[in-house]
Amino acid sequence: MITPEAIQHKIDFKTKPLGALGTLETIALQICTIQKTLEPSLLEPTIFLFAADHGIATDGVSAYPQDVTWQMVFNFLQGGAAINVFSKQHDIEVRVVDAGVKKDFENIPRLIHAKINEGTKSFLREKAMSASELEKCFSNGKRIIQEFKKTSTCSIIGFGEMGIGNTSSAALLMHCFTNIPLEKCIGKGTGINEVQFLHKQNILRQAFDAHQIDVQDPYEVLQTFGGFEIASMCSAILESFEQNLIIMVDGFIASAAFLAAYTINPAIIKHAIFCHQSDESGHSLLLDHLKAKPLLNLGMRLGEGTGCAIAYPIIQSAVHFINEMASFESAAVSNKE
Amino acid sequence: MITPEAIQHKIDFKTKPLGALGTLETIALQICTIQKTLEPSLLEPTIFLFAADHGIATDGVSAYPQDVTWQMVFNFLQGGAAINVFSKQHDIEVRVVDAGVKKDFENIPRLIHAKINEGTKSFLREKAMSASELEKCFSNGKRIIQEFKKTSTCSIIGFGEMGIGNTSSAALLMHCFTNIPLEKCIGKGTGINEVQFLHKQNILRQAFDAHQIDVQDPYEVLQTFGGFEIASMCSAILESFEQNLIIMVDGFIASAAFLAAYTINPAIIKHAIFCHQSDESGHSLLLDHLKAKPLLNLGMRLGEGTGCAIAYPIIQSAVHFINEMASFESAAVSNKE
Repeated sequence: MITPEAIQHKIDFKTKPLGALGTLETIALQICTIQKTLEPSLLEPTIFLFAADHGIATDGVSAYPQDVTWQMVFNFLQGGAAINVFSKQHDIEVRVVDAGVKKDFENIPRLIHAKINEGTKSFLREKAMSASELEKCFSNGKRIIQEFKKTSTCSIIGFGEMGIGNTSSAALLMHCFTNIPLEKCIGKGTGINEVQFLHKQNILRQAFDAHQIDVQDPYEVLQTFGGFEIASMCSAILESFEQNLIIMVDGFIASAAFLAAYTINPAIIKHAIFCHQSDESGHSLLLDHLKAKPLLNLGMRLGEGTGCAIAYPIIQSAVHFINEMASFESAAVSNKE
Repeated sequence: MITPEAIQHKIDFKTKPLGALGTLETIALQICTIQKTLEPSLLEPTIFLFAADHGIATDGVSAYPQDVTWQMVFNFLQGGAAINVFSKQHDIEVRVVDAGVKKDFENIPRLIHAKINEGTKSFLREKAMSASELEKCFSNGKRIIQEFKKTSTCSIIGFGEMGIGNTSSAALLMHCFTNIPLEKCIGKGTGINEVQFLHKQNILRQAFDAHQIDVQDPYEVLQTFGGFEIASMCSAILESFEQNLIIMVDGFIASAAFLAAYTINPAIIKHAIFCHQSDESGHSLLLDHLKAKPLLNLGMRLGEGTGCAIAYPIIQSAVHFINEMASFESAAVSNKE
């Protein structure tokens, strides 16, 4: 039985002033607690990148055409995207999931096929998905992680996403789950101009008002405003917790999926490491709502799981220091007088 | 001839929204500018760790006994300290310099011998060092970097320090160079209690008042309040700039050395990457004074160059993305509409 006191004692007797490694010490304590050990390890780090299209994208909320979703999926598979570069740097495996991209990917082998439909419906006019589609998202997310864990010793997992229009979906989810005013949940996504931004705000206000839903019900919220990648990711996060994995949370959209999962099972937060604060304006409020202190704040707003990949070496450092640093005793260094 | 526009163009046409990699883009631009290339590289990253003792340490300003300085030098050489662990993680070489530790290290081979004296004098009673000792710090710092570069292709260098009492020296330097009230420059160092903290404030106020010096003169300031490791590091930083190296700046004490060097040659700031904001209370004000935005803010306050080592993979990511990411054209991804 590893007690929190035993972990803290090991941290405190490393050759450094008490608490001098700051957040690294918090992370080390968290990982030791999850793994019930004084010698934690990070095995086969993996990022699942869920991609899907959004009906709302056709209503002028994004700076990029919807085709960019499937084009970027090919970019991920060819290794040319930011997430590929950063994952390669840190030996992180990237697995790309088609959760509902508007493109026939049938013959592509290195893709996880979990397409619900060719994009959601526009929630400006109707619910984004049917009840059975939502159910399928949940069974897919769970199955993907279960299948993965059958053949992998992975102990740390991250989630990324791609989907033109998905900051709109994430903003509505955030509004429903946090009750923060909708305007504060909406940002400029991939970089729309001021006119487009006003349009996006109007559209999302209209969309929210059009549906009289129970904002306390995560399933109803996801069905109405969700995306296939977000709902599938939500389920994958819940299952990752069940599998005792450390969960790396990326930026705004991944955090919205985490928030949905957290609403279903608040215990997951014990396994979460919030990797970065996105430049997407709602993200800092979302993190505050979760009382989360992100590892990085580098003005990034790219998604794909890039925040997880960039933050990963910091998590590694936390594991390395607790395993490898000398203690005052072993190094014959005098402790505080 | 590589123009800033050519570098920015390469950054902007990577498959990501404009500016979406935030600070990584700033760093990529900076490194390309330093190296005058569109294909930057980080070669043989090295951290020089300068250690020395301080007369002021015997006046009750630190939570640890002075012996910890030499004990930690042995810990560095044996690979048990935090800086060893994090440097090993990222293939960074650590070179330890005895700039003035109160210990006979004569027969230790893997140490760079640049001892000025066995610790400074207490600046509570007299100048910390003589004019000729300061001169020796400057010739040592310069020579160490010049010798190093004769056999190394290193393109990125960091500086760390070890010296019980050196936050006191750094606080006085900061006060002199920035004119920020002394009280705001003083922190709790390795972790003194409230009573010790009040004592430290009194001692440093007394020390400042005892010397009527020209605070605009970096040499006079260093001679009066400096440490051997800080003055030697200041010179090493100036020479690193001359050698066209990227300079990683660590925490409070390393930043005070940087500030001294910056007072002598403001151009060095173009080569500086501020790696982290230390938890030592004066550091955020020191960074503000330099208009520096640190990469990390993890509540660390350990010194040794640990902030450089933890931040290094982020700098690597900046170099990797500009070298390896696909462009919109090469990946056949649609750009903004």
